Amino acid sequence: MSQAKASLAHLYRVFTKPEGKDSRLAQIEAQLSDNLADFLSGHIVTEEIPLEQIEQDFSQAQVPEQPQFVSDHAQHLLDTLVSKSVNTYSPRFVGHMTSALPYFHLSLAKLLVGLNQNLVKIETSKAFTPLERQVLGMMHRLVFAGNDGFYQQHLHSATSSLGTFCSGGTLANLNALWVARNNALPPVAGFRGISEDGLIAAMQHHNINQLAVISSARGHYSLAKAMDLLGLGKSQLHKLNCPQQTLDPQQVLQKGQQILQQGGRVMAIVGIAGTTETGHIDPLDELAEVASELNCHFHVDAAWGGATLFSERHAPLLSGIEKADSVTLDAHKQMYVPMGAGMVLFKDPLAGNAVRHHAQYILRQGSKDLGATSVEGSRNGMAMMLYASLHILGRQGYELLIDESLAKARKFAQLIKAHKDFELVTEPVLCLLTYRLCPGHLREKGRVISDKHNHQLDELNRLIQKQQREAGHSFVSRTRLSTESYPEPITVFRVVLANPLTTEQDLQAILAEQSELATKHPLWDRL
Amino acid sequence: MSQAKASLAHLYRVFTKPEGKDSRLAQIEAQLSDNLADFLSGHIVTEEIPLEQIEQDFSQAQVPEQPQFVSDHAQHLLDTLVSKSVNTYSPRFVGHMTSALPYFHLSLAKLLVGLNQNLVKIETSKAFTPLERQVLGMMHRLVFAGNDGFYQQHLHSATSSLGTFCSGGTLANLNALWVARNNALPPVAGFRGISEDGLIAAMQHHNINQLAVISSARGHYSLAKAMDLLGLGKSQLHKLNCPQQTLDPQQVLQKGQQILQQGGRVMAIVGIAGTTETGHIDPLDELAEVASELNCHFHVDAAWGGATLFSERHAPLLSGIEKADSVTLDAHKQMYVPMGAGMVLFKDPLAGNAVRHHAQYILRQGSKDLGATSVEGSRNGMAMMLYASLHILGRQGYELLIDESLAKARKFAQLIKAHKDFELVTEPVLCLLTYRLCPGHLREKGRVISDKHNHQLDELNRLIQKQQREAGHSFVSRTRLSTESYPEPITVFRVVLANPLTTEQDLQAILAEQSELATKHPLWDRL
Repeated sequence: MSQAKASLAHLYRVFTKPEGKDSRLAQIEAQLSDNLADFLSGHIVTEEIPLEQIEQDFSQAQVPEQPQFVSDHAQHLLDTLVSKSVNTYSPRFVGHMTSALPYFHLSLAKLLVGLNQNLVKIETSKAFTPLERQVLGMMHRLVFAGNDGFYQQHLHSATSSLGTFCSGGTLANLNALWVARNNALPPVAGFRGISEDGLIAAMQHHNINQLAVISSARGHYSLAKAMDLLGLGKSQLHKLNCPQQTLDPQQVLQKGQQILQQGGRVMAIVGIAGTTETGHIDPLDELAEVASELNCHFHVDAAWGGATLFSERHAPLLSGIEKADSVTLDAHKQMYVPMGAGMVLFKDPLAGNAVRHHAQYILRQGSKDLGATSVEGSRNGMAMMLYASLHILGRQGYELLIDESLAKARKFAQLIKAHKDFELVTEPVLCLLTYRLCPGHLREKGRVISDKHNHQLDELNRLIQKQQREAGHSFVSRTRLSTESYPEPITVFRVVLANPLTTEQDLQAILAEQSELATKHPLWDRL
Repeated sequence: MSQAKASLAHLYRVFTKPEGKDSRLAQIEAQLSDNLADFLSGHIVTEEIPLEQIEQDFSQAQVPEQPQFVSDHAQHLLDTLVSKSVNTYSPRFVGHMTSALPYFHLSLAKLLVGLNQNLVKIETSKAFTPLERQVLGMMHRLVFAGNDGFYQQHLHSATSSLGTFCSGGTLANLNALWVARNNALPPVAGFRGISEDGLIAAMQHHNINQLAVISSARGHYSLAKAMDLLGLGKSQLHKLNCPQQTLDPQQVLQKGQQILQQGGRVMAIVGIAGTTETGHIDPLDELAEVASELNCHFHVDAAWGGATLFSERHAPLLSGIEKADSVTLDAHKQMYVPMGAGMVLFKDPLAGNAVRHHAQYILRQGSKDLGATSVEGSRNGMAMMLYASLHILGRQGYELLIDESLAKARKFAQLIKAHKDFELVTEPVLCLLTYRLCPGHLREKGRVISDKHNHQLDELNRLIQKQQREAGHSFVSRTRLSTESYPEPITVFRVVLANPLTTEQDLQAILAEQSELATKHPLWDRL
């Protein structure tokens, strides 16, 4: 490989001249643009490569001294990075929440980098700021169904915030709980508010000894992270057991009353609209009532399930979400936008003022800078990707996608139930389900599977998931789950059927491969 | 405009077929790729359009019902979004920290979206995780200069973390202070640590009444935001005055001792390597000593200035940064990577364990998932952009860029000093400087500019900055600043000379335009 020289001419060229049509980078780009599926399946190595082996290619902890030609580096990326990446586009990789994306995002990604706006302040984002505000308004309306006057008043108001964009659900949940915490401990005589005076002064002035959040055991791990960050402590996150995968409002109320009796206060109830593990939806309507009774913030983590609202048929599954004080959505999940497009929405456009901050050269009072109520500072114009998707797919397009995904999950559940080697563990509420390998004779009527058998099944399912992943044709994920039938957690396969390219044939092939791997495995005959 | 239909066929097409070569989107992409400067200057409207007018194009708060053809939408984006964006590539837009980027990022942005990996866990990022760890290792070595053995041990270790990538400096600073807070309040008998038991229990068990951070008045606004988020309260952020633009270590020590005497503790000192407003660098070496004396965490916010370490000639400006416990860097600033590439680095690879978190289906104990010690959860593979830049530019390439920027800033300072209508307010330490319009006669030897004149000058500088921005040929930003000569804040122009395409001619043109606008202004003759 020839070495480039660190000259001003070389640098100037990199900044001002595109690679020629015949350059390696241009070739790669052309392949990628012409047929992404072929590009990925052609370049990504099928069989899993041990991580330690991949790490060898990335073990040099020293900034390279000399420049490299773009074409050389492009080939290097193809060989070391692309070849060992995960094919998230593949219709048989149904173990995670990333899926094939619409083609236009490839071109828009380029436009985004070409424009390279910084959304933290109007001065460096001009049209992107109104665009982001509009997208937030659209999503706000989808969730909260405000009227025309409401959006006319708040969409572009400097003192209102319908929500903020962020990199993902974790930051969105943090932002929501931050706002909830600060609003729960407002200024009183001698106390300037928690933002200024901190948590300890806040608890003293409000005369409370604990500030708790109630959620289900299926709550996303980001909730605990937020409790740590906000200084409340993970022990103040009460994750209630949910053998049926959803919160019991009665239990939430009891827990809340117990906290109040102990001199504490419930800061927030978090309902989930689409748990990460099984896709279940908490009873949002009833939880809203409990929150109202406990006089606390009601947050809904709809990172996964929020997009269900596009479907007239399935939106009622999320009934009650419109009563939430804040809602988390991830456009990079069921909205088919590239990674990095989370959002938090606030029903009350003034709620975010509890965390509003200013600076001299930026985020001035009265400015419409988006960074004034967000956790993040500088960030890119990812909102454009969702804006384009909302227009090009339209509500009706999203509706079709959601309806198809849910139908596919139900179809897959049928296939699993009809197969002698599998047991459906959780029914799909949205397009997620869990199941496991479990020979038919263990599931005969009236029979209870012993702990010993369950442990053997755990081991078998773990091994087969790994084998299948390593073979590289398909990918399902696995988790451990307790259910009504299995109070002790069992190991299950978890699938997410959001990829519109996944067909029934793909699903049959996944089961066939698992069944074949399992029945050949020595553990199988010992069951 | 014809309406697309929400059919499965339309959707399937969007997910599987690229737009034809003659489609509007493909045309736009081709223009963008062939000549970005022409594309931007050709499509972005020069004169500033009032924000209210831009907002009219983004005022519909309802998800469009029907799908739209990709070509139609591409044209729409061009007309409403691109045309009203900010030309961050332009060599005469020197008011912000975003600049022209190398061309290869356009193609890589496409590759990134095509691969669409999720860096939160190995399962969905495979090769990207080792790559990100390597990039963190390279930057760690640039800052802390560990030896080979150190990086062999920690680069890919599941229990070590050399740092984390994040969207930007705000999150990086938050991450650093979070780690500092949790390490300052470790578990003791009857207390499981702040992460579990929260801030109030922590303060009780450690018998302290305040947990303070000391920084300069030039500290980034994200520090106050972090204080709020972490529950410490902004009032515990002690921002010391710095008429010379840098922290006085003696004052920091005094403030720290005062806090200790009051029963508090200093959690961290934050030094700045490149302030946002003037580019000044705190005396890091001496601050490290003070931190050691106060037994507290030493964080360096090198979001802007960190890249100076690439330059052998200028790296000594940051002397002492290697003694920091944590360092913030932004690759989207002087490393010429697209927006959204921040980092925090930890000198001690075990420091991040104070915020380590796990979950069942993800971030399992012993896994190398990158999400276990970060503020963010799901996020994209932006590290690839820096990886490519480090290879294609090389240390020597970056060195040239840094050296050129600093030389350009010094040149601009000379031009300002030689011009009768301007006053240089802060000398460039890095490639930032501040200046203002101020007629020569007011600056005659021995003369002190009166408050009245300063107020008039403030008004004049504010108006001219606005006029220049609105005219759309050039852009400098403005801020208010106090200095040794001006203890009362004055309004100044602020320029950042990081764009490699900016020439001396550009700088002369900027001054000429300002001088012309000013001398024509009625305020000028009244001075």
